Formats: sequence, C-alpha cells, structure tokens
Amino acid sequence: MNISSATRDSYPYQNEPIWSRSEKAIARTAFDAALGRELYEVIQKTKQMANAIQGSADLWDLELYLTQRRKEIDFKYDSHHSQLMHVFGRLLYEKRLSEKELRGL
Amino acid sequence: MNISSATRDSYPYQNEPIWSRSEKAIARTAFDAALGRELYEVIQKTKQMANAIQGSADLWDLELYLTQRRKEIDFKYDSHHSQLMHVFGRLLYEKRLSEKELRGL
Repeated sequence: MNISSATRDSYPYQNEPIWSRSEKAIARTAFDAALGRELYEVIQKTKQMANAIQGSADLWDLELYLTQRRKEIDFKYDSHHSQLMHVFGRLLYEKRLSEKELRGL
Repeated sequence: MNISSATRDSYPYQNEPIWSRSEKAIARTAFDAALGRELYEVIQKTKQMANAIQGSADLWDLELYLTQRRKEIDFKYDSHHSQLMHVFGRLLYEKRLSEKELRGL
C-alpha cells in the first residue's frame, strides 16, 4: 500500500469512537432489530401490492417499488459505514429505532 | 436526413412483406393475445411468489424475477421489430401462439 492510499483509508476513521464489547453487542442488536422491522414492512407491502395486481402497470410498479426499497435499504444499513452513529441517527429520526434500544452506547 | 442515415433506416426492411389491412388486424390480434397470456402468467407467478415470501431472500428473488421477465418480454414483444414474422416464429415455437391465430397471414 502506498502512502496516499493509506492516508485515504485511515483518515475518515479519526473521529470514530472505539467500541467496547458490550457497546458492539448493543449496536448489533439495535441495527438488526431496525433492519428486521424495515424488511418486515416491505414484505407486508409487497404481499398487499401483489394481491392487488390487475394488469401489467401494477406488475411493473411492484418491480420498481422493490428495486427502490432494496437500494434505499442497502444504502441506509451499510454496516461498513465509517460513521455507524450516523446510521443510528437516521434510524432514530425515522422512528425505526427507539432511544431505549441504544441505551448503553 | 443525410444519405447514410436514410440508407440505414430503409435497408433492413427490404425483405419485409407488405401487409394488407386484414393481415395487420390478424397480426395485431395474435400479438396482443400472446402478450396478454404471457403477462397473465407472470402476474399469477408473482402473486404466488409474494404470498410465499418468508424473508428478505424471497423478497429480492421476487424483484430479480420481475426484472428478468420484464426485460425478456420487452425484447421478445418488440413491436417495432423489423421482422415481425420472427417474433411470431418464436411465439409459435414457445407454444404461446397457435397456427390458427395466424391463419390469414
């Protein structure tokens, strides 16, 4: 690795907190719970949309809905995100996580 | 339009049959019937897959299925295809059209 790529890789993490083992466990549980709830919502909505399909427009609307939700969820729950607290911040704002679930962080 | 684009546009049609009004009507009816049956199959399969979703893997499998079927159908039923007889040939081969539906062409 040359100097410039080492700098590029390490720089964004300078403000990242160092997580204790218990904090990591709390973070993982909260993350998985929010993701699970969001996927459950998408599954329920998909079943509703599928049952209501009457023609090709409804069919391709469902495809578009799934593609958009997949991309949004992939982006929002990027667990390699260098700033996991930003992920949690967004989930709190969207009421997908409660402060109680993050107690201990 | 310059000469080269005029040549490019007209050249592929040199072997295209000239359709009578009744042939065009038969072709349109057969085309719409085959497309309608194929879309009906996809809608039924989509409803089955959606009802059977248990987790995120099933959810994204449905998205992939829809994307693949949409692309395949878009390609297969390209009504601007310069050789509509090739579209019908494929649909006959796939048993999505009967020879009876093309009687008169």
